[in-house]
Amino acid sequence: MNEDPLVAIVKVKVRYSETDAIGVVWHGNYFRYFEDGREAFGEKYGLEYLYMYNNDFITPLVKIDCDYLSPLKYGETAIVETKFINTKAAKIIFEYNIYRESDNEKVATGSSTQVFITTKGEFSITTPEFYENWKQKQGLL
Amino acid sequence: MNEDPLVAIVKVKVRYSETDAIGVVWHGNYFRYFEDGREAFGEKYGLEYLYMYNNDFITPLVKIDCDYLSPLKYGETAIVETKFINTKAAKIIFEYNIYRESDNEKVATGSSTQVFITTKGEFSITTPEFYENWKQKQGLL
Amino acid sequence: MNEDPLVAIVKVKVRYSETDAIGVVWHGNYFRYFEDGREAFGEKYGLEYLYMYNNDFITPLVKIDCDYLSPLKYGETAIVETKFINTKAAKIIFEYNIYRESDNEKVATGSSTQVFITTKGEFSITTPEFYENWKQKQGLL
Amino acid sequence: MNEDPLVAIVKVKVRYSETDAIGVVWHGNYFRYFEDGREAFGEKYGLEYLYMYNNDFITPLVKIDCDYLSPLKYGETAIVETKFINTKAAKIIFEYNIYRESDNEKVATGSSTQVFITTKGEFSITTPEFYENWKQKQGLL
Repeated sequence: MNEDPLVAIVKVKVRYSETDAIGVVWHGNYFRYFEDGREAFGEKYGLEYLYMYNNDFITPLVKIDCDYLSPLKYGETAIVETKFINTKAAKIIFEYNIYRESDNEKVATGSSTQVFITTKGEFSITTPEFYENWKQKQGLL
Repeated sequence: MNEDPLVAIVKVKVRYSETDAIGVVWHGNYFRYFEDGREAFGEKYGLEYLYMYNNDFITPLVKIDCDYLSPLKYGETAIVETKFINTKAAKIIFEYNIYRESDNEKVATGSSTQVFITTKGEFSITTPEFYENWKQKQGLL
Repeated sequence: MNEDPLVAIVKVKVRYSETDAIGVVWHGNYFRYFEDGREAFGEKYGLEYLYMYNNDFITPLVKIDCDYLSPLKYGETAIVETKFINTKAAKIIFEYNIYRESDNEKVATGSSTQVFITTKGEFSITTPEFYENWKQKQGLL
Repeated sequence: MNEDPLVAIVKVKVRYSETDAIGVVWHGNYFRYFEDGREAFGEKYGLEYLYMYNNDFITPLVKIDCDYLSPLKYGETAIVETKFINTKAAKIIFEYNIYRESDNEKVATGSSTQVFITTKGEFSITTPEFYENWKQKQGLL
């Protein structure tokens, strides 16, 4: 079994429109960076939205959280690190670390949990087969 | 024929998340206020999204513009005035005026144009029947 | 001491711009609703941003989380309930419940933690005097 | 005098959070792409926000518009082309063309006008010296 965690890294430039009246990124916009992280993970490891959709599943978020350690400002670049947390439950769990590129300081950390719902709208208690296959391919079973 | 313009008014409180690093509403967020204006218009005059959708049409924007006259800040309330511009073309045209509630100053003005596309994705050159009926009911024909 | 929790309620209409490609409110936009809740709380109980700012403090978020129970859609209205969680720490903690107005179903729940930073940028370990006074006035000490 | 227009090109990946309930990029989000375009222009030609700010000027938008030609979807990448429009007025004018990367189709076009305001808040009728110098350096005078 693969002992190394699956991790994807992506750089995100802070947009001016993402800042707020005190000159830092508005807290709700970090969830855009987390989403960029999940996207990068999906591309790197073949777990894209479309792959899941073509297997008749969507994976809505049921839980998300963020701890803010240091503000990000306009002009700065965020490094988003997205780590896959292996679980036997019918869930996709990620942990995130965001770093400021200029000084490598960790500015935020968080996690998210997604569940499997069929494209017909049925909640899946068990792990879908396509996901089991993906995990096997990644050495996660 | 109705000579009075159809106008809807709606109040919108500026959200903190809508401000940017210089402490004023980010310019792109005024288009959210315009949308609140169209929504208020639709409710007042029975031209909601769902009404159109149930008549097998969606009405995507093809053109929008905004002139910024004075900045809106966090804590302020915008008054959005949405005026229907009658046209024989197969289009829905609105003009917008946004006022700051506290001093009644006009802070922005703009316009938008929407076209008719069937829910099957076909562009409509002629005005749909349901829209002709709506116009007649409003005394616009 | 006041045993009843301080709670503020505010209605928020879902904006079209807040939905995403699967037709429901994008998860990150619930934090806008939480902010509307804090705002309503501040207005009701005299704990506005400006009141704090005039007392030389800002209160940035250091932690936020949300559990998603049921999707909100365009056209729906959210009822945001914001409850003050009393703590001796130099923090402001809120809990949130969001309900769909049409059927009263709880659609999301969450919490947030804010700390006190002086307008000069210094983190405050102890509770600022103005906040102690506010708590006393609310019967929270 | 330089006859070739100054043009900057930047690629922008459509974010899931930027789509709306009919599965395409919400119209107001194209102004984020325009801003990415201005940013890319500033970097390429040395006309960044900070450069202007350090010369005691900010350049707020006074006018923006967009024509929508074809929808952009989640998963697609936009190519934003930002062209400097030379004018003797105390204004910065840009024109934008957005193309879908996959098929090179033009999906949107627009323009923006910015004015010069000193960091003390005074509107500038004449072109600031630093901007004249920048234009000279670019062969635009």
